[in-house]
Amino acid sequence: MAKPAPISPLAPKSIPDLPGVDGVRFAAGEAGIRYKGRTDVLLAVMDKGTQAAGVFTRSKCPSAPVDWCRAKLKGGKARALVVNSGNANAFTGKVGAAAVKKTAEIAAKATGAPASEIYLASTGVIGEPLDASKFEGVLDRLAGDVRADAMLDAARAIMTTDTFPKVATQTATIAGVPVTIAGVAKGAGMIAPDMATMLSFVFTDAPIAAAALQGMLSKAVETSFNALTVDSDTSTSDTLMLFATGAAAKRGCPKITDKGDRRLADFRAKLDLVLRDLAQQVARDGEGARKFVSVTVEGAKTAKSAKGVAMAIANSPLVKTAIAGEDANWGRVVMAVGKAGEPAERDRLAIWFGDIRVAAKGLRDPSYDEAKVSAYMKGEEIAVKVDLGLGTGRFTAWTCDLTKEYVAINGDYRS
Amino acid sequence: MAKPAPISPLAPKSIPDLPGVDGVRFAAGEAGIRYKGRTDVLLAVMDKGTQAAGVFTRSKCPSAPVDWCRAKLKGGKARALVVNSGNANAFTGKVGAAAVKKTAEIAAKATGAPASEIYLASTGVIGEPLDASKFEGVLDRLAGDVRADAMLDAARAIMTTDTFPKVATQTATIAGVPVTIAGVAKGAGMIAPDMATMLSFVFTDAPIAAAALQGMLSKAVETSFNALTVDSDTSTSDTLMLFATGAAAKRGCPKITDKGDRRLADFRAKLDLVLRDLAQQVARDGEGARKFVSVTVEGAKTAKSAKGVAMAIANSPLVKTAIAGEDANWGRVVMAVGKAGEPAERDRLAIWFGDIRVAAKGLRDPSYDEAKVSAYMKGEEIAVKVDLGLGTGRFTAWTCDLTKEYVAINGDYRS
Repeated sequence: MAKPAPISPLAPKSIPDLPGVDGVRFAAGEAGIRYKGRTDVLLAVMDKGTQAAGVFTRSKCPSAPVDWCRAKLKGGKARALVVNSGNANAFTGKVGAAAVKKTAEIAAKATGAPASEIYLASTGVIGEPLDASKFEGVLDRLAGDVRADAMLDAARAIMTTDTFPKVATQTATIAGVPVTIAGVAKGAGMIAPDMATMLSFVFTDAPIAAAALQGMLSKAVETSFNALTVDSDTSTSDTLMLFATGAAAKRGCPKITDKGDRRLADFRAKLDLVLRDLAQQVARDGEGARKFVSVTVEGAKTAKSAKGVAMAIANSPLVKTAIAGEDANWGRVVMAVGKAGEPAERDRLAIWFGDIRVAAKGLRDPSYDEAKVSAYMKGEEIAVKVDLGLGTGRFTAWTCDLTKEYVAINGDYRS
Repeated sequence: MAKPAPISPLAPKSIPDLPGVDGVRFAAGEAGIRYKGRTDVLLAVMDKGTQAAGVFTRSKCPSAPVDWCRAKLKGGKARALVVNSGNANAFTGKVGAAAVKKTAEIAAKATGAPASEIYLASTGVIGEPLDASKFEGVLDRLAGDVRADAMLDAARAIMTTDTFPKVATQTATIAGVPVTIAGVAKGAGMIAPDMATMLSFVFTDAPIAAAALQGMLSKAVETSFNALTVDSDTSTSDTLMLFATGAAAKRGCPKITDKGDRRLADFRAKLDLVLRDLAQQVARDGEGARKFVSVTVEGAKTAKSAKGVAMAIANSPLVKTAIAGEDANWGRVVMAVGKAGEPAERDRLAIWFGDIRVAAKGLRDPSYDEAKVSAYMKGEEIAVKVDLGLGTGRFTAWTCDLTKEYVAINGDYRS
């Protein structure tokens, strides 16, 4: 196990006060899956009738819990969530599927909820069988301990080499009734021989039906978590779930079943804010990150094309090492635009670092001032902007720089 | 400019004796484009009637010389080749196109060849205008100095941060007549604020017509240079050209115009060997490389699908940092298979490091011996093999590990 890393310099300056989300209670405990002396399992218990939505990794080799959640989500209902760190239960075949089933049964017994309404996620080592019997007893105790104000403990229990817990919250109004949205995420942590996994769970007391939740979540993920890259490597375990307890109905919030309902406008906007906040925190805790990088591409033929170019830039090792070296190396941005395979014309391209235009119309900007751009590159937040000059498609991606610490974290150990 | 790096530990133990290729002569000189005290321009002069074929970067932002070569190649004829290091003449707009034209004119004057039969390539800084007047005088002198045995000098003149010159040669027979194939390449070098560019030029005295040459080259590149990745970043300047002087006709070699001609079988096989040799040398000189890595995927539905999976593994920073750390982290190989987007089934997958099977049928191999695989990972050459168990598609890609030195080379400087 790697030594605890210092907190990322890009971490938010403070952790927000997390309000309780009416209808959901949390507890964190020690199951001893892999780590010693720290929590490694969270239990969330939700009111009967809670609606669920989720999006999962597109990996062709998904983990056993991802398979489980996908299957259970067809029912759209949720009563509990169990997440462990230390073992990803991925590439574990039938043994993995059996471990997932056993975990759900233990959680069902502990909480009184049906196993079919229990969701599971795991992060950590790949390819090692997960011993589900370790949850026995622990989940019973946690079920007795759940509290509405324990969400931060939950965020801590799912950290691997994350250097800070990731939480975000917003208040939205639906038909004038305030509802809460609050969520947790874990980021690109790595422990020998683990792999990065991204897990995020968001809760609300709004009474919104599963199909409408799913519609909003699937759309919002495209410009939040799917706009995020640390190292271009997609986990077998990526999971983002949204749970709506409906408890705000008691306070007069109308029940909403249609994702197109106009009364969802504010909720949708605030959900976007929460998801973007969590996704950006994951980039801010990217392995070895010293700079938070946003890449905006505009003027593309379509938004999809803009995303293709933005991700090519955000995933380029040469762009990311240049940023780590505080070098405004826009030639590497040109390279990444060129390799993206999306429509682009050299002689229409313009590139900015922050507000400083460095290249335009196929040439270095005539007013290019090396000293000015060098000063900008010393900052902790670097905004790269590219205008392709072809249309109105636009996309912003988030990433971090690529430092020697990334290589050290992922290479300097023996499993 | 970065300090000269020590020669890659993966460099070939010796440089082969390069035979002259009848009909082509080389010279290298100092044009002072960027470097001081070293050669930075090569001139190759070829016999009248030399046939040419080429493949170029698929970048949407190609360099000016790439645009030039693509246009001239329609004629299929070549008399001279001029390559400089120190400036890539990329993202230089109309100024770049004018510099290319002027360079060709200077070379035409020096060699007496028509400008339309002169090919150009540049490697180095992006976005800086190339001062073509620096070639004046130099190319005149070189045209007087060209020698059949100066190919190694040519290979040295196009190095940027390459740590060794890359050459390869084979003898093939066509209808019983021996012909020579010999080529040079430069690899993934980087100098502030340059980007990696791959250039390779191969010469033969075989009398093969341009269309047949092009057919063979386009096919052979797929399993040689297009099977190569150092860091997934595609240059604006990648250029591979094949020139056939036809001088072997004097020795009774028949003229060949059809790429399907059976008499080309041995030539085709030897051309493959030369291209693979050069491509592997580029991986062996990958920035910061300490291990040469081959990734073989078999059992894919198609060869294209096998290539998709092999490149996902060979480009994965997590796989490459694990190899740098001498960690047989097959979980990351599973991850890369999963993210490739190609057909794959977790429970059919098998993975080997060298001859050691580490995973099979969705689980760690029951006979997995950590000590044995750890010993293997300490070697300089690492073979990763994946069997997808779905079909007969097969592909091998070459890469190198991802070390802190890669980040240092590309990030530890200010331009």
